Parts: sequence; C-alpha cells; structure tokens
Amino acid sequence: MDNAASTRLNAYALEKMMPFLTDEYANPGGVYDHASGAARAVAKARHDIAYTIGAEPNEIYFTCGGTEADNWALMGAAALAKTPGMVFGRRNVTGIQSPHIITSSFEHHAVLNTCRYLETLGVEVSYVNPSGDGIIPVSAIEKQICSDTMLISIMLANNETGTIQPVKEIGKLARDKGILFHTDAVAAYGHIPIDVNELNIDLMSVSAHKLNGPKGVGFLYMRGSIKLPPFMHGGAQEQGRRAGTVNVPGVVGMASAAICHHDEMAENLRRVNELGDHFMHRLEAMEYRIGGRNVRINGSI
Amino acid sequence: MDNAASTRLNAYALEKMMPFLTDEYANPGGVYDHASGAARAVAKARHDIAYTIGAEPNEIYFTCGGTEADNWALMGAAALAKTPGMVFGRRNVTGIQSPHIITSSFEHHAVLNTCRYLETLGVEVSYVNPSGDGIIPVSAIEKQICSDTMLISIMLANNETGTIQPVKEIGKLARDKGILFHTDAVAAYGHIPIDVNELNIDLMSVSAHKLNGPKGVGFLYMRGSIKLPPFMHGGAQEQGRRAGTVNVPGVVGMASAAICHHDEMAENLRRVNELGDHFMHRLEAMEYRIGGRNVRINGSI
Repeated sequence: MDNAASTRLNAYALEKMMPFLTDEYANPGGVYDHASGAARAVAKARHDIAYTIGAEPNEIYFTCGGTEADNWALMGAAALAKTPGMVFGRRNVTGIQSPHIITSSFEHHAVLNTCRYLETLGVEVSYVNPSGDGIIPVSAIEKQICSDTMLISIMLANNETGTIQPVKEIGKLARDKGILFHTDAVAAYGHIPIDVNELNIDLMSVSAHKLNGPKGVGFLYMRGSIKLPPFMHGGAQEQGRRAGTVNVPGVVGMASAAICHHDEMAENLRRVNELGDHFMHRLEAMEYRIGGRNVRINGSI
Repeated sequence: MDNAASTRLNAYALEKMMPFLTDEYANPGGVYDHASGAARAVAKARHDIAYTIGAEPNEIYFTCGGTEADNWALMGAAALAKTPGMVFGRRNVTGIQSPHIITSSFEHHAVLNTCRYLETLGVEVSYVNPSGDGIIPVSAIEKQICSDTMLISIMLANNETGTIQPVKEIGKLARDKGILFHTDAVAAYGHIPIDVNELNIDLMSVSAHKLNGPKGVGFLYMRGSIKLPPFMHGGAQEQGRRAGTVNVPGVVGMASAAICHHDEMAENLRRVNELGDHFMHRLEAMEYRIGGRNVRINGSI
C-alpha cells in the first residue's frame, strides 16, 4: 500500500545489473579494455533514459537520487542567477543579488528544505498554496513573479495525494517570462507520459527506486542550453558537472526499469485507475467511514 | 592492475545485498512491519562500520561515495567556521569571515576541486607539497597555520603512489591548535588499520567500491562533538544531517565488504607486500628499464 515510499526492484532490471555487480566491475572512467564495457553500459543507460522523456543523452546527469537532483537544481539555479551573465531566456540579466524562487507549500522536503537553506543565503522564496483540489493554480504563481524571479519549481505529481500539476502551463508561463522551470518528477516519472519539450521543462528530478529501479540512483534532466554549476566537486564525470565514480549497476538498473515502465505505461495506468475506482467505490459503499472515523479525500480524482 | 580505480564486488557482500535487491525492498524510513527489516539492516551496517574504525554508530553518516563525503566535510567545515559560535576545540571563535584550510597539492580531485570552489566563496586555502618520497611533512603544515585556520585536510594514503601520510601527527597538531582534522581515507580504509581516536581524526571520507563493496555508496565519519550542517537538504535521514532514502543494499554491501577486509587485513597486507616486493625485485633485475624507457619510483617503499 506504500509504493510511493519505495518499490520492489524489477526482476529484469536486476538481471541487467548483475554483470556489473560481478565481472564487469571496472570504473567506467578507465582507459583500458576492461572499462569499456562499463562505459558502454552507462552510455546506453543515458540514451535509454533520454528517450523516455524526449531529451538528448547529454541532457541527462546521473545523481544518487531525487534529493540530490533537487538540491542541485535549486542551488545551481540560484548560483547561476547571481553570476554576471545570462540566465536562461533573460539576456539582459547581469547578476541578481537576491534571486527569487517561486515554489509550492506542498513540495517534497528535498525542495522545501533546500529552499529554506537558500533563504539563509539571501535567496527570496515564495511558497504558493494548492487549492482544495490539490492543484497549484497557475494564476497564483503568476501573481508572485517579480523582476528577480529566476526559478519556478513545482512538482509534477504530488507524492502524497497523487494530484498532477499543470506543469505545461507553468512551464509556458516561465518560458514567456524568461524564468527557469524545474519540476520534481519523482512521483510521476515512469507512471505518466512526460515529454520535456511538450511540458516546457528546463530541469527535472527523478529517483529510480520509485519506479522499480534500485535505491541510491536518480538523474537530473538539464536542458542543453542550461549549464548549472556543479553541486558535487571532484573528478570530471558527467561532462565535468557531477563528480564521483558513476554507479554503473545503479544507472543500468534505473534505465532498465524506466524502459519497462515506458513500454507498459498504458497498461499500468489502466490497471491503477481501475484499482483507484474500486477503492473509491468501496469507500462510498462504506459511507466514507473507516473504523468509526470519517474519511476526507485529499486531492482530486 | 588498477584496483585503485575500482574493485570487484565481494561475493559475500553481494549475497548479503540480495535480499534487499529483492523481497526486502521497503524504504527503511517506513513505520510499518515491512520496513523494519530494512531499518534493522541499516542499523547493523552502521554498527559494523563503526566497529572497524573504533567509532560509535551515530558517528557514521552514509553518503553516495567518497566524493560526497569530501564535499560535505570541506563545505560543512567552512560553513561551520563562518557561523558565530564554537568551532571544535576553539571555544573563543565567534565566526571567521575568511576561514583558512590547509591541504596538500596531491589530494584527490574531490578535495582539490572542492577547495578551489571554496576559494571562489572567499575561503583561503594553502596547498602543501609532498617531499620527494611522497610524504607531506608535518612541519610544512605547521608553518601554514594562522589564526583563521579551521581545517586541515590530508589524505591517509595517496591514491596513485600509495604513500601513507603521518595523519596521527597531523591530527595531534590540529587538535593541539584547536583545528578540525579531515582525512580522505578512500585509498586506505579496509587496507590498513584505522582507529579514528588513535589517529586523532575528526572527519574521514570512505568509498565502498575501493574495498570490494558496491559503487554508489560511502560514508563520512564525523566525531560526535562535531555537527556539520547538512550538505544535502530534504528528509530527516541520518540524524537530520543527510537527506535522501538510504541505499539499503548499498550500505549492507559496504558493511559486509568492510568486515571481510577488517578480518582479512593482516593476511591481505602480507600478500600485497609480497607482491610489491616481487614487483620491485623484477624492476631491479630489469635495471629499472621497461620497453627501452627509464623507470622512476614515485613515492617511498
């Protein structure tokens, strides 16, 4: 009942990981033959994941999970906004002293607590509330936009209520105003179709273990025109933007699970919707009472 | 020939990981029965790792690898030094405006590039050179100490030459002066005995895949009296200091590999020393020439 917390590792994904948990253990950064198999597997995983969201492989940056991707997106965007030069789409920006971020009050803690940390560094953050149906009104976001707004971060699907946010419209608004748009898609990716171009997404966070991939791996999608500074410093991995030996079994497992979800999405959606309908009908039959207590539906159906 | 880059995953470690790559997939943060097995495994891994270095379990913070641990140690210490209040051992410090770090010029890039990034934020960094035998002279570090010095970061064993640094003496110097001491032990942990108390270590970085553990996991040892601010913000994992779902199979694999190395350390050291002697004798017999080129030994034997 809590597949929003974590999911069982897909058996096919585990099978694809096994060579890299045994014989193919080389560091993919090596220049010798033994490393080339690992490097090829990493390249294929990047290609496969890019395919599932309509992106280019060099727009996928592997991380250790959704939390790192969220931290990177927000901190990187804030650092970029302070740098003299161009922020995506705002060619006249030459360094914002107090960058402004718009987010929602029901984001995951990885976004909320990073925003709170950024506030201690002088970043201004506006927290927009969802309406009663669990949806962030686009108009409420638009009202908060000011000349220092450089990032809007709104999750694609809420991790507790499942409500799907109007990211396409929010992304369009951001693009029109020359503001970066980040979405935490941890609860959505693999479950509903996502095309980063169609949805006007600039930055997107994903975690593998929410879609039957392994724990400890995720990715940040970063639109090619956007070059956030590194969050983790060190070696030259991930186009010099994310240091650390690539978790080869992890990214192979994530890509394998992602391809499975991509291929089975229509069938899974149909089945989950059926289960949801069944659950709601049962609740109705029980007159919205469980164990003597009233039930209230958070979000919309 | 390149087990300094990565190592084969220990078969016993993989066996211990398998339940958590299959049935025991729950998020260890869950409050239901299915999560308790994962939570117990994480607690045991923390206990086992603490045991191998003479630390307490609550001094072990799981990370996604050595790079994250290095980034956290250096950035966290710099942030702590700027905070009004106490820096470890320096009870009169009330916020250093330009904190000073002493490190070496042959640290891993995870330390060097984090230092370079911190320099852009106003942190002063001194890079001490090793002498011809590949050892950092303690006296050279001592010369660099000034009133703003709040951190010394010297690796335990160099990842290219294998030279072992005088960390016990450097740690003693740091402690006497009220300066934090961090060591990147990625190339040393599991291979030579490490007791964080005996070696006067305050902060220590480790990566699992260098000691036949899995890729994508490591830890930061943080002495109990030291509370670095989080590097990654979000959920309340790791005593609220390191957000993100714990990589259960990863930490179980790391701890299993660490215990194996701990138990077999004397035998492994003997065997590796024999191999080293054999290699050096062969080089000598070849009059220090390979393929018509002269050989020069970096470091000391």
